[in-house]
Amino acid sequence: MSNTSIKLVEVGPRDGLQSEASVATESKIQLVDELSAAGVRYIETGSFVSPKWVPQMADSAAVFAGIQRREGVTYAALTPNLKGFEAALAAGADEVAIFGAASEGFSQKNINCSIAESLARFEPVLAAAQQAGLRVRGYVSCVLGCPYDGDIAPSQVAWVAEQLAAMGCYEVSLGDTIGVGTPLKAQQMLEAVAKRVPMEQLALHFHNTYGQALANIASCLPMGVRTIDSAVAGLGGCPYAKGASGNVASEDVVYMLHGMGYDTGIDLTALIQAGARICQRLGQRPRSNVALAELAKQ
Amino acid sequence: MSNTSIKLVEVGPRDGLQSEASVATESKIQLVDELSAAGVRYIETGSFVSPKWVPQMADSAAVFAGIQRREGVTYAALTPNLKGFEAALAAGADEVAIFGAASEGFSQKNINCSIAESLARFEPVLAAAQQAGLRVRGYVSCVLGCPYDGDIAPSQVAWVAEQLAAMGCYEVSLGDTIGVGTPLKAQQMLEAVAKRVPMEQLALHFHNTYGQALANIASCLPMGVRTIDSAVAGLGGCPYAKGASGNVASEDVVYMLHGMGYDTGIDLTALIQAGARICQRLGQRPRSNVALAELAKQ
Repeated sequence: MSNTSIKLVEVGPRDGLQSEASVATESKIQLVDELSAAGVRYIETGSFVSPKWVPQMADSAAVFAGIQRREGVTYAALTPNLKGFEAALAAGADEVAIFGAASEGFSQKNINCSIAESLARFEPVLAAAQQAGLRVRGYVSCVLGCPYDGDIAPSQVAWVAEQLAAMGCYEVSLGDTIGVGTPLKAQQMLEAVAKRVPMEQLALHFHNTYGQALANIASCLPMGVRTIDSAVAGLGGCPYAKGASGNVASEDVVYMLHGMGYDTGIDLTALIQAGARICQRLGQRPRSNVALAELAKQ
Repeated sequence: MSNTSIKLVEVGPRDGLQSEASVATESKIQLVDELSAAGVRYIETGSFVSPKWVPQMADSAAVFAGIQRREGVTYAALTPNLKGFEAALAAGADEVAIFGAASEGFSQKNINCSIAESLARFEPVLAAAQQAGLRVRGYVSCVLGCPYDGDIAPSQVAWVAEQLAAMGCYEVSLGDTIGVGTPLKAQQMLEAVAKRVPMEQLALHFHNTYGQALANIASCLPMGVRTIDSAVAGLGGCPYAKGASGNVASEDVVYMLHGMGYDTGIDLTALIQAGARICQRLGQRPRSNVALAELAKQ
Protein backbone atom coordinates (compact mmCIF):
# COMPACT_ATOMS: atom_id res chain seq x y z
CA MET A 1 0.00 0.00 0.00
CA SER A 2 1.47 3.34 -0.99
CA ASN A 3 1.60 6.21 1.46
CA THR A 4 -1.42 7.86 -0.18
CA SER A 5 -3.51 4.69 -0.13
CA ILE A 6 -6.23 4.55 2.54
CA LYS A 7 -8.04 1.45 3.77
CA LEU A 8 -11.65 2.35 4.44
CA VAL A 9 -13.41 0.03 6.88
CA GLU A 10 -17.14 0.24 6.18
CA VAL A 11 -19.08 -0.39 9.39
CA GLY A 12 -22.55 0.66 8.17
CA PRO A 13 -24.10 -2.81 7.85
CA ARG A 14 -23.08 -3.66 11.43
CA ASP A 15 -22.28 -0.67 13.68
CA GLY A 16 -24.70 1.42 11.65
CA LEU A 17 -27.74 -0.82 11.20
CA GLN A 18 -27.51 -2.24 14.71
CA SER A 19 -28.77 1.09 16.07
CA GLU A 20 -31.39 1.61 13.38
CA ALA A 21 -34.92 0.26 13.27
CA SER A 22 -35.24 -3.30 11.99
CA VAL A 23 -34.13 -3.78 8.39
CA ALA A 24 -35.09 -6.72 6.15
CA THR A 25 -32.31 -9.27 5.61
CA GLU A 26 -32.68 -8.80 1.85
CA SER A 27 -31.99 -5.06 2.24
CA LYS A 28 -28.87 -5.76 4.27
CA ILE A 29 -27.60 -8.15 1.62
CA GLN A 30 -28.26 -5.58 -1.09
CA LEU A 31 -26.42 -2.91 0.91
CA VAL A 32 -23.34 -5.10 1.38
CA ASP A 33 -23.34 -6.02 -2.31
CA GLU A 34 -23.72 -2.40 -3.40
CA LEU A 35 -20.86 -1.39 -1.10
CA SER A 36 -18.53 -4.00 -2.55
CA ALA A 37 -19.64 -3.03 -6.08
CA ALA A 38 -18.71 0.59 -5.21
CA GLY A 39 -15.17 -0.55 -4.49
CA VAL A 40 -15.29 -0.89 -0.70
CA ARG A 41 -12.74 -3.57 0.19
CA TYR A 42 -13.53 -4.12 3.88
CA ILE A 43 -17.11 -4.48 5.10
CA GLU A 44 -18.17 -5.25 8.65
CA THR A 45 -21.08 -7.35 7.55
CA GLY A 46 -22.71 -8.55 10.76
CA SER A 47 -22.45 -9.40 14.41
CA PHE A 48 -22.80 -12.73 16.17
CA VAL A 49 -24.16 -11.71 19.53
CA SER A 50 -27.17 -12.90 21.49
CA PRO A 51 -30.34 -11.82 19.65
CA LYS A 52 -31.66 -11.05 23.12
CA TRP A 53 -29.19 -8.14 23.30
CA VAL A 54 -29.06 -7.03 19.69
CA PRO A 55 -32.15 -8.28 17.82
CA GLN A 56 -31.19 -6.17 14.77
CA MET A 57 -28.24 -8.51 14.12
CA ALA A 58 -30.08 -11.83 14.61
CA ASP A 59 -29.98 -12.49 10.86
CA SER A 60 -26.22 -12.07 10.38
CA ALA A 61 -25.75 -15.68 9.26
CA ALA A 62 -28.42 -15.18 6.60
CA VAL A 63 -26.70 -11.97 5.46
CA PHE A 64 -23.36 -13.78 5.10
CA ALA A 65 -25.12 -16.58 3.20
CA GLY A 66 -26.89 -14.18 0.85
CA ILE A 67 -24.13 -11.80 -0.21
CA GLN A 68 -22.23 -12.10 -3.48
CA ARG A 69 -18.62 -12.57 -2.47
CA ARG A 70 -16.33 -10.31 -4.40
CA GLU A 71 -12.64 -11.12 -4.81
CA GLY A 72 -10.40 -9.02 -2.61
CA VAL A 73 -13.17 -7.95 -0.24
CA THR A 74 -12.98 -8.80 3.47
CA TYR A 75 -16.35 -9.53 5.08
CA ALA A 76 -15.93 -9.24 8.84
CA ALA A 77 -18.09 -9.94 11.88
CA LEU A 78 -18.18 -8.77 15.47
CA THR A 79 -17.84 -11.71 17.87
CA PRO A 80 -18.11 -11.00 21.59
CA ASN A 81 -17.53 -14.60 22.71
CA LEU A 82 -16.59 -18.11 21.62
CA LYS A 83 -20.15 -19.05 20.71
CA GLY A 84 -20.34 -15.96 18.51
CA PHE A 85 -16.98 -16.76 16.98
CA GLU A 86 -18.08 -20.27 16.06
CA ALA A 87 -21.23 -18.94 14.46
CA ALA A 88 -19.20 -16.35 12.52
CA LEU A 89 -16.78 -19.05 11.35
CA ALA A 90 -19.68 -21.25 10.24
CA ALA A 91 -21.26 -18.31 8.41
CA GLY A 92 -18.03 -17.73 6.50
CA ALA A 93 -16.75 -14.50 8.05
CA ASP A 94 -13.26 -13.64 6.75
CA GLU A 95 -12.23 -11.86 9.93
CA VAL A 96 -13.68 -11.22 13.35
CA ALA A 97 -13.56 -8.31 15.75
CA ILE A 98 -13.49 -7.96 19.52
CA PHE A 99 -13.75 -4.85 21.67
CA GLY A 100 -12.64 -3.22 24.87
CA ALA A 101 -13.35 0.14 26.45
CA ALA A 102 -10.71 2.74 27.28
CA SER A 103 -12.93 3.82 30.17
CA GLU A 104 -13.45 1.81 33.36
CA GLY A 105 -16.81 3.52 33.89
CA PHE A 106 -18.02 2.54 30.42
CA SER A 107 -16.79 -1.04 30.85
CA GLN A 108 -18.54 -1.40 34.21
CA LYS A 109 -21.81 0.17 33.07
CA ASN A 110 -21.95 -1.71 29.78
CA ILE A 111 -20.63 -5.17 30.55
CA ASN A 112 -20.40 -5.13 34.30
CA CYS A 113 -16.69 -5.89 34.59
CA SER A 114 -13.35 -4.11 34.52
CA ILE A 115 -11.43 -3.46 31.31
CA ALA A 116 -8.85 -6.12 32.25
CA GLU A 117 -11.58 -8.68 32.92
CA SER A 118 -13.32 -7.86 29.64
CA LEU A 119 -10.10 -8.37 27.69
CA ALA A 120 -9.41 -11.69 29.45
CA ARG A 121 -12.82 -12.95 28.31
CA PHE A 122 -11.75 -12.52 24.68
CA GLU A 123 -8.77 -14.87 25.01
CA PRO A 124 -10.71 -17.97 23.92
CA VAL A 125 -11.93 -16.07 20.83
CA LEU A 126 -8.38 -15.11 19.89
CA ALA A 127 -7.15 -18.68 20.44
CA ALA A 128 -9.96 -20.13 18.33
CA ALA A 129 -9.44 -17.53 15.58
CA GLN A 130 -5.73 -18.29 15.46
CA GLN A 131 -6.46 -22.00 15.16
CA ALA A 132 -8.96 -21.33 12.36
CA GLY A 133 -6.53 -18.99 10.61
CA LEU A 134 -8.74 -15.91 10.96
CA ARG A 135 -7.35 -12.49 11.75
CA VAL A 136 -8.82 -10.57 14.67
CA ARG A 137 -9.47 -6.83 14.77
CA GLY A 138 -9.70 -5.02 18.11
CA TYR A 139 -11.89 -2.04 18.92
CA VAL A 140 -11.24 0.39 21.73
CA SER A 141 -14.23 2.53 22.67
CA CYS A 142 -14.38 5.92 24.42
CA VAL A 143 -10.87 6.92 23.32
CA LEU A 144 -11.69 10.66 23.40
CA GLY A 145 -14.24 10.74 26.19
CA CYS A 146 -16.75 8.66 28.11
CA PRO A 147 -20.40 9.40 28.94
CA TYR A 148 -19.68 8.35 32.54
CA ASP A 149 -16.01 9.17 33.20
CA GLY A 150 -15.62 12.28 31.02
CA ASP A 151 -12.07 12.83 29.77
CA ILE A 152 -9.95 9.75 29.14
CA ALA A 153 -6.16 9.93 29.48
CA PRO A 154 -4.29 9.12 26.23
CA SER A 155 -2.04 6.79 28.28
CA GLN A 156 -5.12 4.77 29.27
CA VAL A 157 -6.12 4.36 25.61
CA ALA A 158 -2.54 3.37 24.78
CA TRP A 159 -2.60 0.72 27.50
CA VAL A 160 -5.82 -0.89 26.21
CA ALA A 161 -4.63 -0.74 22.60
CA GLU A 162 -1.35 -2.36 23.61
CA GLN A 163 -3.21 -5.14 25.42
CA LEU A 164 -5.32 -5.89 22.32
CA ALA A 165 -2.24 -5.93 20.09
CA ALA A 166 -0.37 -8.15 22.55
CA MET A 167 -3.32 -10.56 22.62
CA GLY A 168 -2.95 -10.95 18.86
CA CYS A 169 -5.17 -8.31 17.24
CA TYR A 170 -3.52 -7.38 13.92
CA GLU A 171 -5.27 -4.00 13.95
CA VAL A 172 -6.64 -1.78 16.69
CA SER A 173 -9.46 0.64 15.88
CA LEU A 174 -9.64 3.69 18.12
CA GLY A 175 -13.25 4.70 18.69
CA ASP A 176 -14.56 8.10 19.72
CA THR A 177 -17.80 6.39 20.70
CA ILE A 178 -19.66 9.52 21.74
CA GLY A 179 -18.08 11.81 19.17
CA VAL A 180 -16.85 14.45 21.61
CA GLY A 181 -13.22 14.66 20.49
CA THR A 182 -11.56 17.66 18.86
CA PRO A 183 -8.46 17.75 16.61
CA LEU A 184 -5.74 18.45 19.16
CA LYS A 185 -7.07 15.80 21.56
CA ALA A 186 -7.32 13.29 18.73
CA GLN A 187 -3.71 13.95 17.78
CA GLN A 188 -2.51 13.65 21.37
CA MET A 189 -4.39 10.37 21.81
CA LEU A 190 -3.05 8.93 18.55
CA GLU A 191 0.48 10.02 19.42
CA ALA A 192 0.29 8.24 22.77
CA VAL A 193 -1.10 5.04 21.24
CA ALA A 194 1.41 5.00 18.37
CA LYS A 195 4.22 4.85 20.93
CA ARG A 196 2.92 1.42 21.98
CA VAL A 197 1.37 0.02 18.80
CA PRO A 198 2.84 0.69 15.34
CA MET A 199 0.86 3.29 13.35
CA GLU A 200 0.33 0.73 10.53
CA GLN A 201 -1.77 -1.32 12.96
CA LEU A 202 -4.00 1.57 14.03
CA ALA A 203 -7.36 2.73 12.68
CA LEU A 204 -9.52 5.76 13.48
CA HIS A 205 -13.18 5.12 14.29
CA PHE A 206 -14.62 8.57 14.90
CA HIS A 207 -18.26 9.42 15.43
CA ASN A 208 -19.67 12.72 14.22
CA THR A 209 -21.98 13.48 17.17
CA TYR A 210 -20.41 16.91 17.67
CA GLY A 211 -19.57 17.39 13.98
CA GLN A 212 -15.85 16.97 14.63
CA ALA A 213 -15.10 13.62 12.97
CA LEU A 214 -13.69 14.87 9.66
CA ALA A 215 -11.63 17.57 11.37
CA ASN A 216 -10.22 14.93 13.71
CA ILE A 217 -9.42 12.57 10.85
CA ALA A 218 -7.83 15.37 8.78
CA SER A 219 -5.69 16.32 11.76
CA CYS A 220 -4.49 12.73 12.30
CA LEU A 221 -3.71 11.87 8.67
CA PRO A 222 -0.38 13.76 8.63
CA MET A 223 0.68 11.57 11.58
CA GLY A 224 0.63 8.54 9.27
CA VAL A 225 -2.59 6.72 10.10
CA ARG A 226 -3.98 5.08 6.96
CA THR A 227 -7.06 3.11 8.09
CA ILE A 228 -10.39 4.89 8.65
CA ASP A 229 -13.69 3.39 9.85
CA SER A 230 -16.93 4.97 8.64
CA ALA A 231 -20.54 4.13 7.86
CA VAL A 232 -22.26 4.85 4.56
CA ALA A 233 -24.92 7.60 4.95
CA GLY A 234 -23.74 8.02 8.55
CA LEU A 235 -25.91 5.01 9.45
CA GLY A 236 -26.41 4.53 13.17
CA GLY A 237 -27.40 7.29 15.52
CA CYS A 238 -25.91 8.04 18.89
CA PRO A 239 -27.46 5.94 21.68
CA TYR A 240 -26.41 8.60 24.20
CA ALA A 241 -28.13 11.52 22.45
CA LYS A 242 -31.27 10.66 20.49
CA GLY A 243 -31.46 12.61 17.23
CA ALA A 244 -27.71 13.25 17.16
CA SER A 245 -25.28 11.83 14.60
CA GLY A 246 -23.33 8.64 15.08
CA ASN A 247 -20.71 7.20 12.73
CA VAL A 248 -18.98 9.61 10.39
CA ALA A 249 -20.42 9.18 6.89
CA SER A 250 -18.28 7.21 4.44
CA GLU A 251 -19.25 9.57 1.61
CA ASP A 252 -17.89 12.58 3.53
CA VAL A 253 -14.68 10.73 4.41
CA VAL A 254 -14.11 9.53 0.85
CA TYR A 255 -14.82 13.00 -0.59
CA MET A 256 -12.29 14.54 1.79
CA LEU A 257 -9.65 11.86 1.17
CA HIS A 258 -9.95 12.10 -2.61
CA GLY A 259 -9.80 15.89 -2.37
CA MET A 260 -6.57 15.56 -0.39
CA GLY A 261 -5.01 13.28 -2.98
CA TYR A 262 -5.51 10.00 -1.14
CA ASP A 263 -6.63 6.90 -2.97
CA THR A 264 -9.43 4.71 -1.57
CA GLY A 265 -10.37 2.64 -4.62
CA ILE A 266 -13.98 3.68 -4.03
CA ASP A 267 -16.41 5.10 -6.60
CA LEU A 268 -18.00 7.98 -4.66
CA THR A 269 -21.08 8.19 -6.89
CA ALA A 270 -21.84 4.49 -6.43
CA LEU A 271 -21.25 4.84 -2.68
CA ILE A 272 -23.74 7.74 -2.50
CA GLN A 273 -26.31 5.65 -4.35
CA ALA A 274 -25.83 2.69 -1.97
CA GLY A 275 -26.38 5.01 0.98
CA ALA A 276 -29.40 6.67 -0.62
CA ARG A 277 -31.06 3.30 -1.21
CA ILE A 278 -30.68 1.98 2.34
CA CYS A 279 -31.87 5.35 3.70
CA GLN A 280 -34.92 5.20 1.47
CA ARG A 281 -35.75 1.82 3.00
CA LEU A 282 -35.21 3.22 6.49
CA GLY A 283 -37.38 6.22 5.63
CA GLN A 284 -34.69 8.72 6.54
CA ARG A 285 -32.36 11.25 4.91
CA PRO A 286 -28.70 10.26 4.60
CA ARG A 287 -26.61 11.77 7.42
CA SER A 288 -23.92 12.63 4.89
CA ASN A 289 -23.44 16.21 3.73
CA VAL A 290 -21.80 14.99 0.53
CA ALA A 291 -24.76 12.72 -0.23
CA LEU A 292 -27.30 15.48 0.50
CA ALA A 293 -25.43 18.00 -1.65
CA GLU A 294 -24.98 15.61 -4.56
CA LEU A 295 -28.52 14.19 -4.41
CA ALA A 296 -29.94 17.75 -4.28
CA LYS A 297 -28.19 18.54 -7.55
CA GLN A 298 -29.96 15.71 -9.39
CA MET B 1 -4.94 39.45 20.83
CA SER B 2 -2.91 36.47 21.99
CA ASN B 3 -2.02 33.70 19.59
CA THR B 4 -4.75 31.44 20.99
CA SER B 5 -7.42 34.12 20.71
CA ILE B 6 -9.88 33.75 17.84
CA LYS B 7 -12.16 36.42 16.42
CA LEU B 8 -15.45 34.82 15.46
CA VAL B 9 -17.43 36.75 12.86
CA GLU B 10 -21.08 35.79 13.24
CA VAL B 11 -22.84 36.03 9.88
CA GLY B 12 -26.11 34.29 10.81
CA PRO B 13 -28.34 37.38 10.95
CA ARG B 14 -27.20 38.45 7.46
CA ASP B 15 -25.64 35.70 5.34
CA GLY B 16 -27.77 33.13 7.17
CA LEU B 17 -31.20 34.72 7.32
CA GLN B 18 -30.97 36.17 3.84
CA SER B 19 -31.42 32.68 2.40
CA GLU B 20 -34.09 31.62 4.87
CA ALA B 21 -37.81 32.24 4.66
CA SER B 22 -38.94 35.66 5.85
CA VAL B 23 -38.28 36.32 9.55
CA ALA B 24 -40.00 38.99 11.67
CA THR B 25 -37.87 42.04 12.44
CA GLU B 26 -38.44 41.47 16.15
CA SER B 27 -36.97 37.95 15.86
CA LYS B 28 -33.90 39.27 14.08
CA ILE B 29 -33.37 41.86 16.82
CA GLN B 30 -33.73 39.18 19.49
CA LEU B 31 -31.23 36.95 17.67
CA VAL B 32 -28.62 39.72 17.45
CA ASP B 33 -29.12 40.60 21.11
CA GLU B 34 -28.85 36.96 22.19
CA LEU B 35 -25.68 36.58 20.17
CA SER B 36 -24.04 39.60 21.79
CA ALA B 37 -25.21 38.37 25.20
CA ALA B 38 -23.52 35.03 24.46
CA GLY B 39 -20.23 36.87 24.03
CA VAL B 40 -20.10 37.20 20.24
CA ARG B 41 -18.08 40.34 19.54
CA TYR B 42 -18.65 40.76 15.79
CA ILE B 43 -22.11 40.39 14.28
CA GLU B 44 -22.98 40.96 10.66
CA THR B 45 -26.36 42.44 11.46
CA GLY B 46 -27.89 43.31 8.13
CA SER B 47 -27.50 44.21 4.50
CA PHE B 48 -28.37 47.42 2.69
CA VAL B 49 -29.19 46.17 -0.77
CA SER B 50 -32.18 46.76 -2.98
CA PRO B 51 -35.23 45.04 -1.42
CA LYS B 52 -36.06 44.03 -4.98
CA TRP B 53 -33.05 41.71 -4.94
CA VAL B 54 -33.00 40.59 -1.30
CA PRO B 55 -36.44 41.18 0.28
CA GLN B 56 -35.33 39.29 3.42
CA MET B 57 -33.00 42.17 4.30
CA ALA B 58 -35.42 45.06 3.61
CA ASP B 59 -35.78 45.70 7.36
CA SER B 60 -32.06 46.04 8.15
CA ALA B 61 -32.43 49.67 9.28
CA ALA B 62 -35.17 48.61 11.72
CA VAL B 63 -32.94 45.81 13.03
CA PHE B 64 -30.07 48.25 13.64
CA ALA B 65 -32.51 50.63 15.36
CA GLY B 66 -33.96 47.90 17.58
CA ILE B 67 -30.88 46.11 18.90
CA GLN B 68 -29.36 46.76 22.31
CA ARG B 69 -25.85 47.97 21.60
CA ARG B 70 -23.33 46.21 23.76
CA GLU B 71 -19.93 47.72 24.47
CA GLY B 72 -17.13 46.11 22.50
CA VAL B 73 -19.41 44.54 19.89
CA THR B 74 -19.08 45.44 16.22
CA TYR B 75 -22.39 45.50 14.32
CA ALA B 76 -21.60 45.33 10.61
CA ALA B 77 -23.57 45.60 7.39
CA LEU B 78 -23.12 44.49 3.81
CA THR B 79 -23.19 47.45 1.43
CA PRO B 80 -22.98 46.75 -2.29
CA ASN B 81 -23.05 50.38 -3.39
CA LEU B 82 -22.93 54.00 -2.25
CA LYS B 83 -26.68 54.17 -1.68
CA GLY B 84 -26.43 51.10 0.54
CA PHE B 85 -23.44 52.55 2.34
CA GLU B 86 -25.29 55.76 3.11
CA ALA B 87 -28.24 53.81 4.46
CA ALA B 88 -25.91 51.67 6.59
CA LEU B 89 -24.20 54.78 7.93
CA ALA B 90 -27.56 56.35 8.77
CA ALA B 91 -28.66 53.13 10.47
CA GLY B 92 -25.55 53.21 12.66
CA ALA B 93 -23.52 50.31 11.27
CA ASP B 94 -20.06 50.16 12.89
CA GLU B 95 -18.43 48.66 9.81
CA VAL B 96 -19.43 47.77 6.29
CA ALA B 97 -18.52 44.96 3.93
CA ILE B 98 -18.06 44.68 0.19
CA PHE B 99 -17.50 41.58 -1.95
CA GLY B 100 -15.81 40.26 -5.02
CA ALA B 101 -15.69 36.83 -6.63
CA ALA B 102 -12.53 34.82 -7.21
CA SER B 103 -14.21 33.35 -10.26
CA GLU B 104 -14.85 35.23 -13.51
CA GLY B 105 -17.73 32.89 -14.31
CA PHE B 106 -19.41 33.58 -10.97
CA SER B 107 -18.91 37.33 -11.33
CA GLN B 108 -20.38 37.36 -14.83
CA LYS B 109 -23.36 35.14 -13.97
CA ASN B 110 -24.16 36.95 -10.72
CA ILE B 111 -23.51 40.59 -11.40
CA ASN B 112 -22.95 40.63 -15.11
CA CYS B 113 -19.45 42.12 -15.10
CA SER B 114 -15.84 41.08 -14.73
CA ILE B 115 -14.12 40.79 -11.33
CA ALA B 116 -12.05 43.92 -12.07
CA GLU B 117 -15.18 45.88 -13.02
CA SER B 118 -17.00 44.71 -9.88
CA LEU B 119 -14.13 45.85 -7.67
CA ALA B 120 -13.97 49.23 -9.40
CA ARG B 121 -17.65 49.76 -8.57
CA PHE B 122 -16.82 49.54 -4.86
CA GLU B 123 -14.36 52.43 -4.96
CA PRO B 124 -16.98 55.07 -4.06
CA VAL B 125 -18.06 52.94 -1.08
CA LEU B 126 -14.47 52.71 0.17
CA ALA B 127 -13.95 56.46 -0.30
CA ALA B 128 -17.16 57.29 1.55
CA ALA B 129 -16.36 54.82 4.35
CA GLN B 130 -12.90 56.33 4.77
CA GLN B 131 -14.39 59.79 4.98
CA ALA B 132 -16.95 58.62 7.55
CA GLY B 133 -14.23 56.81 9.53
CA LEU B 134 -15.76 53.33 9.04
CA ARG B 135 -13.63 50.27 8.40
CA VAL B 136 -14.45 48.10 5.39
CA ARG B 137 -14.28 44.32 5.28
CA GLY B 138 -13.89 42.55 1.93
CA TYR B 139 -15.35 39.19 0.98
CA VAL B 140 -13.98 36.96 -1.75
CA SER B 141 -16.40 34.27 -2.92
CA CYS B 142 -15.68 30.94 -4.64
CA VAL B 143 -12.15 30.67 -3.24
CA LEU B 144 -12.20 26.85 -3.34
CA GLY B 145 -14.42 26.28 -6.35
CA CYS B 146 -17.14 27.81 -8.48
CA PRO B 147 -20.47 26.36 -9.63
CA TYR B 148 -19.67 27.56 -13.17
CA ASP B 149 -15.87 27.52 -13.52
CA GLY B 150 -15.06 24.53 -11.26
CA ASP B 151 -11.59 24.69 -9.70
CA ILE B 152 -10.20 28.14 -8.93
CA ALA B 153 -6.43 28.71 -8.94
CA PRO B 154 -5.04 29.87 -5.57
CA SER B 155 -3.16 32.61 -7.42
CA GLN B 156 -6.47 33.97 -8.70
CA VAL B 157 -7.85 34.14 -5.14
CA ALA B 158 -4.64 35.83 -4.01
CA TRP B 159 -4.99 38.44 -6.77
CA VAL B 160 -8.57 39.36 -5.77
CA ALA B 161 -7.68 39.42 -2.05
CA GLU B 162 -4.74 41.68 -2.80
CA GLN B 163 -6.96 44.04 -4.79
CA LEU B 164 -9.42 44.32 -1.90
CA ALA B 165 -6.62 44.96 0.60
CA ALA B 166 -5.05 47.52 -1.73
CA MET B 167 -8.41 49.28 -2.07
CA GLY B 168 -8.43 49.70 1.70
CA CYS B 169 -10.21 46.67 3.16
CA TYR B 170 -8.70 46.06 6.60
CA GLU B 171 -9.70 42.39 6.47
CA VAL B 172 -10.38 39.97 3.63
CA SER B 173 -12.70 37.04 4.24
CA LEU B 174 -12.06 34.02 2.01
CA GLY B 175 -15.33 32.32 1.14
CA ASP B 176 -15.83 28.72 0.06
CA THR B 177 -19.25 29.77 -1.22
CA ILE B 178 -20.34 26.32 -2.39
CA GLY B 179 -18.55 24.37 0.34
CA VAL B 180 -16.62 22.07 -1.96
CA GLY B 181 -13.12 22.57 -0.54
CA THR B 182 -11.03 19.96 1.26
CA PRO B 183 -8.19 20.50 3.76
CA LEU B 184 -5.18 20.37 1.45
CA LYS B 185 -6.81 22.72 -1.07
CA ALA B 186 -7.81 25.10 1.71
CA GLN B 187 -4.21 25.17 2.96
CA GLN B 188 -2.81 25.75 -0.53
CA MET B 189 -5.29 28.57 -1.14
CA LEU B 190 -4.53 30.24 2.20
CA GLU B 191 -0.79 29.88 1.64
CA ALA B 192 -1.06 31.61 -1.74
CA VAL B 193 -3.18 34.46 -0.35
CA ALA B 194 -0.99 34.98 2.72
CA LYS B 195 1.95 35.71 0.39
CA ARG B 196 0.07 38.82 -0.80
CA VAL B 197 -2.01 39.86 2.23
CA PRO B 198 -0.73 39.47 5.82
CA MET B 199 -2.30 36.52 7.66
CA GLU B 200 -3.58 38.88 10.40
CA GLN B 201 -5.84 40.49 7.77
CA LEU B 202 -7.35 37.20 6.54
CA ALA B 203 -10.49 35.38 7.63
CA LEU B 204 -11.93 31.99 6.67
CA HIS B 205 -15.55 31.89 5.55
CA PHE B 206 -16.20 28.22 4.83
CA HIS B 207 -19.53 26.65 4.02
CA ASN B 208 -20.34 23.12 5.14
CA THR B 209 -22.19 21.95 2.02
CA TYR B 210 -19.92 18.90 1.67
CA GLY B 211 -19.32 18.55 5.42
CA GLN B 212 -15.72 19.74 5.09
CA ALA B 213 -15.81 23.16 6.78
CA LEU B 214 -14.46 22.19 10.21
CA ALA B 215 -11.77 19.99 8.70
CA ASN B 216 -10.73 22.88 6.47
CA ILE B 217 -10.66 25.32 9.37
CA ALA B 218 -8.73 22.89 11.58
CA SER B 219 -6.18 22.41 8.79
CA CYS B 220 -5.70 26.17 8.34
CA LEU B 221 -5.41 27.15 12.02
CA PRO B 222 -1.79 25.96 12.34
CA MET B 223 -0.95 28.35 9.49
CA GLY B 224 -1.81 31.26 11.76
CA VAL B 225 -5.26 32.41 10.63
CA ARG B 226 -7.21 33.71 13.62
CA THR B 227 -10.52 35.03 12.23
CA ILE B 228 -13.35 32.63 11.40
CA ASP B 229 -16.78 33.44 9.91
CA SER B 230 -19.71 31.22 10.86
CA ALA B 231 -23.49 31.31 11.32
CA VAL B 232 -25.29 30.23 14.46
CA ALA B 233 -27.29 27.01 13.87
CA GLY B 234 -25.74 26.84 10.40
CA LEU B 235 -28.40 29.36 9.28
CA GLY B 236 -28.67 29.77 5.52
CA GLY B 237 -28.86 26.88 3.13
CA CYS B 238 -26.97 26.49 -0.10
CA PRO B 239 -28.69 28.24 -3.01
CA TYR B 240 -26.90 25.88 -5.42
CA ALA B 241 -28.11 22.63 -3.80
CA LYS B 242 -31.51 22.85 -2.13
CA GLY B 243 -31.61 20.88 1.12
CA ALA B 244 -27.83 21.00 1.54
CA SER B 245 -25.97 22.85 4.29
CA GLY B 246 -24.67 26.39 3.93
CA ASN B 247 -22.62 28.31 6.48
CA VAL B 248 -20.64 26.28 8.98
CA ALA B 249 -22.43 26.38 12.34
CA SER B 250 -20.94 28.73 14.94
CA GLU B 251 -21.64 26.19 17.70
CA ASP B 252 -19.55 23.53 15.93
CA VAL B 253 -16.71 26.00 15.31
CA VAL B 254 -16.70 27.25 18.90
CA TYR B 255 -16.83 23.70 20.30
CA MET B 256 -13.83 22.73 18.17
CA LEU B 257 -11.85 25.88 18.98
CA HIS B 258 -12.42 25.54 22.72
CA GLY B 259 -11.48 21.86 22.55
CA MET B 260 -8.24 22.85 20.83
CA GLY B 261 -7.40 25.39 23.52
CA TYR B 262 -8.39 28.51 21.60
CA ASP B 263 -10.27 31.31 23.32
CA THR B 264 -13.31 32.90 21.67
CA GLY B 265 -14.91 34.71 24.61
CA ILE B 266 -18.18 32.98 23.72
CA ASP B 267 -20.47 31.07 26.09
CA LEU B 268 -21.28 27.94 24.06
CA THR B 269 -24.43 27.09 26.01
CA ALA B 270 -25.89 30.56 25.44
CA LEU B 271 -24.92 30.37 21.77
CA ILE B 272 -26.75 27.03 21.40
CA GLN B 273 -29.85 28.55 23.00
CA ALA B 274 -29.76 31.55 20.65
CA GLY B 275 -29.57 29.20 17.67
CA ALA B 276 -32.33 26.96 19.02
CA ARG B 277 -34.68 29.91 19.43
CA ILE B 278 -34.28 31.31 15.93
CA CYS B 279 -34.64 27.78 14.50
CA GLN B 280 -37.84 27.28 16.46
CA ARG B 281 -39.21 30.43 14.84
CA LEU B 282 -38.08 29.21 11.42
CA GLY B 283 -39.68 25.81 12.12
CA GLN B 284 -36.45 23.92 11.44
CA ARG B 285 -33.81 21.93 13.30
CA PRO B 286 -30.46 23.62 13.93
CA ARG B 287 -27.88 22.58 11.30
CA SER B 288 -25.31 22.26 14.05
CA ASN B 289 -24.22 18.85 15.30
CA VAL B 290 -23.14 20.33 18.61
CA ALA B 291 -26.54 21.96 19.09
CA LEU B 292 -28.40 18.76 18.17
CA ALA B 293 -26.25 16.65 20.49
CA GLU B 294 -26.54 19.05 23.41
CA LEU B 295 -30.27 19.72 22.95
CA ALA B 296 -30.92 15.95 22.73
CA LYS B 297 -29.32 15.50 26.14
CA GLN B 298 -31.76 17.90 27.80
